[in-house]
Amino acid sequence: MPWTATNTEGRPAPAALAVDAVVLRVADRRLEVLALRTEDGRRALPGGLLGPRDDPAEAVRRVLAEKTGLDGIYLEQLAAFADPDRDPRGWIPSIAHLALVPADTTPRDPAARWVTARGRHRWAHDHRDMLALAVDRVEGKLWWSNVAVGLLPAAFTLSQARAVYEGVADTGYDGATFARDLKATGLVEPTGERRSDGPGRPAALYRFVTAAPAWGAGRRKRVSPA
Amino acid sequence: MPWTATNTEGRPAPAALAVDAVVLRVADRRLEVLALRTEDGRRALPGGLLGPRDDPAEAVRRVLAEKTGLDGIYLEQLAAFADPDRDPRGWIPSIAHLALVPADTTPRDPAARWVTARGRHRWAHDHRDMLALAVDRVEGKLWWSNVAVGLLPAAFTLSQARAVYEGVADTGYDGATFARDLKATGLVEPTGERRSDGPGRPAALYRFVTAAPAWGAGRRKRVSPA
Repeated sequence: MPWTATNTEGRPAPAALAVDAVVLRVADRRLEVLALRTEDGRRALPGGLLGPRDDPAEAVRRVLAEKTGLDGIYLEQLAAFADPDRDPRGWIPSIAHLALVPADTTPRDPAARWVTARGRHRWAHDHRDMLALAVDRVEGKLWWSNVAVGLLPAAFTLSQARAVYEGVADTGYDGATFARDLKATGLVEPTGERRSDGPGRPAALYRFVTAAPAWGAGRRKRVSPA
Repeated sequence: MPWTATNTEGRPAPAALAVDAVVLRVADRRLEVLALRTEDGRRALPGGLLGPRDDPAEAVRRVLAEKTGLDGIYLEQLAAFADPDRDPRGWIPSIAHLALVPADTTPRDPAARWVTARGRHRWAHDHRDMLALAVDRVEGKLWWSNVAVGLLPAAFTLSQARAVYEGVADTGYDGATFARDLKATGLVEPTGERRSDGPGRPAALYRFVTAAPAWGAGRRKRVSPA
């Protein structure tokens, strides 16, 4: 029997309120999503149910800390998913979130796997739609915001940054053009340090000016012919 | 007493699920929001409660049709607002939506008023936050998407479009630059018709290539120094 609820006014109420998280990283220039395996072999996003005093974003942080050991991550709300049939347990809307983590993040939960975000996996519930929205969101604001701050370590070389941007945009960038364009956003600054990045002169390290959500110089700029 | 609900699993459930709508228009180069007056004199966004079989977007359309006579409007979801204290009636999360309408839209509800979206009004609940998010959303994607399709009539002159873009961005644009930049987005096309727009030669009419959500040529472009 599906769950139901009736409120003190005598009207039908949601049976519960859920949160789900699309956790993305870029590893080897590939955008990946953290997926749990369900009993019937489908993929599922990490998520949980909210209590009456829960803040949704805090609840997502708690779920990710419990299920994956992730902590202190970039998090933003994606959208509410409230199709009446989305959850076989009953009328359970979910507030989907986007979480971004660096490439070296390893989930604690042995059931959790990194799988390609653009792959053809079978997803439970409406998790395919949540994932599609998350990829569209991060790809769309990649160059206009500092959203990649969640995907990169605190200090990074321009070639590290390029690998991450290429993975999100699913494209290749020319190295010199990438460096010029990234600096032109005004969102990154040199740390003053250098790090050996292979043979040759150690590469300059950069950081995002702020880890708080920020828009680059281009966001409100008008579009002129290239 | 606040409303409460318990589900068939014996756990607390949301007392209800709400939708709210930030309805925006640009009139006389000013961004305005549709506001109802509450009993205590504050402003409130139009909204309502969802039933267990309701699709949120459809519910918003129904609320707007009933309360304001608005129909067939541009609508997108903004975000879920789920602060436990947001509604004094109980645990009632709300899914906020953004609706965009042309300047000549007149609400049917006599309690509804157009007020300036950037003004210092007293708002009920968390409606100020919903409004701020809506203004940020439409301003942010103004030049990268066809979002203004909801604010303009089906066919418009470039000076009509400029007035709308100026209202959203809260800025002034040079006429020639505006025309060039709007065409460069690839989102508008000439209808082939002209309309008299004051003295002189009748102005060319334009339309958006599609009314469905679309991104312009600039969205994924990298940011280069101006």
